[in-house]
Amino acid sequence: MSILKDPSLWQSVLDFRSARDWGQFHTLRTLSTALAVEAAELAEITQWTPDSDLAKRSIEARDKIEEEVADLCILLTYLVHDLAIDVDDVVRRKLATNGAKYPIDRFKGSSRKYNE
Amino acid sequence: MSILKDPSLWQSVLDFRSARDWGQFHTLRTLSTALAVEAAELAEITQWTPDSDLAKRSIEARDKIEEEVADLCILLTYLVHDLAIDVDDVVRRKLATNGAKYPIDRFKGSSRKYNE
Amino acid sequence: MSILKDPSLWQSVLDFRSARDWGQFHTLRTLSTALAVEAAELAEITQWTPDSDLAKRSIEARDKIEEEVADLCILLTYLVHDLAIDVDDVVRRKLATNGAKYPIDRFKGSSRKYNE
Amino acid sequence: MSILKDPSLWQSVLDFRSARDWGQFHTLRTLSTALAVEAAELAEITQWTPDSDLAKRSIEARDKIEEEVADLCILLTYLVHDLAIDVDDVVRRKLATNGAKYPIDRFKGSSRKYNE
Repeated sequence: MSILKDPSLWQSVLDFRSARDWGQFHTLRTLSTALAVEAAELAEITQWTPDSDLAKRSIEARDKIEEEVADLCILLTYLVHDLAIDVDDVVRRKLATNGAKYPIDRFKGSSRKYNE
Repeated sequence: MSILKDPSLWQSVLDFRSARDWGQFHTLRTLSTALAVEAAELAEITQWTPDSDLAKRSIEARDKIEEEVADLCILLTYLVHDLAIDVDDVVRRKLATNGAKYPIDRFKGSSRKYNE
Repeated sequence: MSILKDPSLWQSVLDFRSARDWGQFHTLRTLSTALAVEAAELAEITQWTPDSDLAKRSIEARDKIEEEVADLCILLTYLVHDLAIDVDDVVRRKLATNGAKYPIDRFKGSSRKYNE
Repeated sequence: MSILKDPSLWQSVLDFRSARDWGQFHTLRTLSTALAVEAAELAEITQWTPDSDLAKRSIEARDKIEEEVADLCILLTYLVHDLAIDVDDVVRRKLATNGAKYPIDRFKGSSRKYNE
């Protein structure tokens, strides 16, 4: 039940919040909305970037990308903690579902899923 | 450099993609947009829910919530893998930044951050 | 085919873009992503606000709200212009669809739609 | 104060809501979140589409695009009505702000704004 490799870091994220008593502001709604806002900020980085410039953009916006990824991970940590979601378990089940939906022999190298 | 506790699961997520040769459709832009879309789907779960019904909503929409969390974790796994982002490192740095911005003695129990 | 009441303003929005030759950066994808980013910025305004403080928040964040609404309208103007979408027509059809889906006698005052 | 050209349609959108007494579920927060969700659904249409396929995608997904645009316009109608926002006025002011920020002689044909 972690989204961070290092268990002590997972604890640090929770401690950061407890130290400030900010858990009272965190609900399924506020955390979900905050995740949507942070993910939109990540998408903003390439909103005007043509495909041909994406590699360059990834480099020049590195700091901003890392910051948004950190925000997403921190918010996810709070959400899965508060709802007692077992991330490993839900990801494992999702892979099984997707595996059945997109069998390798029919979808390998195919962009069909990506072009519905 | 993981968002999943279990290293073998992290590998399973990457293997799922390789088996289908789908990495070719993944860029900073497509993964960021997909993250924004999945996070919006998570926010959709409570879009009409008043604060007083959030606890009930969390329970009745459990499956949907877990599915969206799984999607977010899978997409994040691809993104941090492809950009070689060290999640533990960026989260640690973000906590340090936020710690300096919101010192405990001035922000404990305060909703100021949440009311700017 | 307008989202603005005043036809001369609709034209001003288009002229603003032509004068800068920015139409070349606008596609279904860039405009859609930009709309998602601006809408997320609007949602950000109330991301931590409890229901009980929404009225107050609406007043104190008035300038920011108006700015995001303007951005959404400007982006929508470009999108419906470029794709030659007849907004009045699509809204009229959507109302008909929703009217059939949510008949008054069964949905009046009901929060069912809002609680699925 | 309209986002629809036809004043009677603007009224139809409001009447649709009154007939069902749904205004009670609409606040700055619920409408903003709903706008973010609908805009993300619009962005979803091109989330995996490379630039080279955007023209084709615009055609094949026409119905979906029109539906999302209608949803955005309907939600915007409710929001600007409820907050008494004069759309023409806020757009006019935003154009003035942007005009000062991006003078024609320095930004014509330039992608600088789009590459910050």
